Amino acid sequence: MDDLTTKSAFDNTIIESFSQPTIEEIENRFNRLWENMDENSLDYYVCVSTDNIFYLTNFANYVHERPFILIISQNKNDNPTFLVPKLEMLHVAMRKIGQIEIVSYAEFPAPSGEAWIDRFQQLIPSTARVGIESICPRFVVDAIVGDVICTDLIDDLRMVKSTYELSRIQYASNLASKAHGHFLETVHVGDTMLQAGQAVTGEIMTRLLSDEPSLNIFATKVNHVFQPPSISHDPHNFTDINMVVENGGPHVTIINGVMNGYGTEIERTFFMGYAPEAAKRPFETMMLARRSVMEMALPGTSMNDVDKAVNEIFRRAGYEDYLLHRAGHGIGVTGHEAPFFAEGYHRVLVPDMVFTVEPGIYISGVGGFRHSDTIRITDSVAVSMTVALDDIDDLIITT
Amino acid sequence: MDDLTTKSAFDNTIIESFSQPTIEEIENRFNRLWENMDENSLDYYVCVSTDNIFYLTNFANYVHERPFILIISQNKNDNPTFLVPKLEMLHVAMRKIGQIEIVSYAEFPAPSGEAWIDRFQQLIPSTARVGIESICPRFVVDAIVGDVICTDLIDDLRMVKSTYELSRIQYASNLASKAHGHFLETVHVGDTMLQAGQAVTGEIMTRLLSDEPSLNIFATKVNHVFQPPSISHDPHNFTDINMVVENGGPHVTIINGVMNGYGTEIERTFFMGYAPEAAKRPFETMMLARRSVMEMALPGTSMNDVDKAVNEIFRRAGYEDYLLHRAGHGIGVTGHEAPFFAEGYHRVLVPDMVFTVEPGIYISGVGGFRHSDTIRITDSVAVSMTVALDDIDDLIITT
Repeated sequence: MDDLTTKSAFDNTIIESFSQPTIEEIENRFNRLWENMDENSLDYYVCVSTDNIFYLTNFANYVHERPFILIISQNKNDNPTFLVPKLEMLHVAMRKIGQIEIVSYAEFPAPSGEAWIDRFQQLIPSTARVGIESICPRFVVDAIVGDVICTDLIDDLRMVKSTYELSRIQYASNLASKAHGHFLETVHVGDTMLQAGQAVTGEIMTRLLSDEPSLNIFATKVNHVFQPPSISHDPHNFTDINMVVENGGPHVTIINGVMNGYGTEIERTFFMGYAPEAAKRPFETMMLARRSVMEMALPGTSMNDVDKAVNEIFRRAGYEDYLLHRAGHGIGVTGHEAPFFAEGYHRVLVPDMVFTVEPGIYISGVGGFRHSDTIRITDSVAVSMTVALDDIDDLIITT
Repeated sequence: MDDLTTKSAFDNTIIESFSQPTIEEIENRFNRLWENMDENSLDYYVCVSTDNIFYLTNFANYVHERPFILIISQNKNDNPTFLVPKLEMLHVAMRKIGQIEIVSYAEFPAPSGEAWIDRFQQLIPSTARVGIESICPRFVVDAIVGDVICTDLIDDLRMVKSTYELSRIQYASNLASKAHGHFLETVHVGDTMLQAGQAVTGEIMTRLLSDEPSLNIFATKVNHVFQPPSISHDPHNFTDINMVVENGGPHVTIINGVMNGYGTEIERTFFMGYAPEAAKRPFETMMLARRSVMEMALPGTSMNDVDKAVNEIFRRAGYEDYLLHRAGHGIGVTGHEAPFFAEGYHRVLVPDMVFTVEPGIYISGVGGFRHSDTIRITDSVAVSMTVALDDIDDLIITT
């Protein structure tokens, strides 16, 4: 435990930042993409994922049925082209960073020659080898005349963070950690999820808006919820939003947010007044699993090995039937993304990947047991970017 | 104008409702889908759109990378199958309405035979003719072994509303109309968008939660924003969320929301203290266009004709270069969906379609001019489901 405390110490090597990316930051991302396109012999890459578009352009928006498509040519002399509805052109131009050409189209059904598909097909030769994302919708795939190769190159790039990105995730993590701490300091039996949520998200949004008045609301989404012991065994159950803090536990509190473009997550299992006897062993087993992740999450280790060790701990404790999810997921321009600590997934950890650490078990009649922190893989150690108390004695709240 | 007042009178024939759909309501939707599948000789239909899944199951959720897929067999003796991540199974079972089988899978990368694709391929014979949505992502399309036919059957069904759906849209429209009226009664120069937004969405959410404490937060999203005259010519520009109400106008206020599963929209162009001379003619031209839609939107008329008449009004007034969008869009389980009042789109209006009516013009240096109401097509007349003052004299606010 002492060893863990050292290893998972709050990371103060990353200076937080809330400023938008520089042109050089965006250029570096395109340079990495061009390298990957080269390795895959792609002439063009077609990007429709709103998260990938934000990563490469700084433009985030709510998308209706009108497509936004980023088209990247392997020829670096051709600037990337961003195909957008005419309706959106002016503010796309205000938000985008870097050398990106904006081409607009007339919305559906559009006069002949002015629809998105007309512009799109002019931009990509019919003989090209064209990379697409696995989430590329059928109607876009059908518009590509050349050879289509499905390969998630941008999602892959996003897995390893730049120093700038780490500073943004650190900023989001600091806000989340503080608000989460205030929640645990002030929580009372009978508090409703809506009251608690408004207090936590209000604190975070007030600070965000004070630091960055022109923040992008389309790249900002802060959620705080909790689950009382009666439903914490079903971790995505928010059927009854009138739920209240109950005596005992385990409750699970959750902050997952994207703050002006970068995500974070922090969660804790907590108790009001006392921890039931039946909760103690599952809690400590979850803590063992959590320590195992922090000790194993080093460069060169496969993500399979990290998750498998967690599952072994739960299996040995007799909790095999109570597993519902993996030991963690990536975080970046979203609050939940690839890669994953997942048994069977043999990708290898490299420095500057960012993950949640959140092994959990869910026992009907007892409850759910899960802490989550956002961590960074460094050369020599996994360091936590979020911070909160985690021992059971500190999470039995008496007021 | 008197004629219009009669025609667009607030519709009191639809009784508002906020209750969830009955089993019969859901069964009727499947029966209509089965008819359409029959006409298209489809053996199966694969549904991944979260909106279409909500329409057919009453289950709405935030979807991460784990797919939720609804598989409908043409054989009515086979219940529709809902393929969901194991993590989500318990609360899917709580929300879903009707005879739907839930099949769960182990999340990525999953032990052999337990991944979503294994379950999926067991459910659909390799010789089947399989309908998909045009937004179906490539990775799902690639998993289908049989013949794939891209046809948006469920989106088509959603265009004509049941009596139940109309009652839900009326409920949402009533809440939006009231909150919008309160906003215009209390707005002052200097009010920030955040203050105004919190007041309006707070009023709506308080009433919603009081009426339906177990409302589905994943099917609820209420937005209120406004644009001051300095940016109202760029209608989707929310780059500076610190914007404030200014002297003069045109400002445009916008409420678009989905309230426990059903959408509505109401928008008004308004002025503080006075209306600049340069704003008067565009405002009145917009009003002419709006009346034209209300007069033309009758069963048997094509959506092309409705939009074309609007565009003709703007062209005759010399505003051709100031058009950015169509005269209106559909509303249902979302706040923005097909069909569209769109020149070139020859679908014909039928009773119980619901649209926004929102012809608009956008003049740099003067501002944006657009009202929006949610209307219902009836046998004999277009009736407004939202209500607000719309004459310029009533929208010059003096406090």
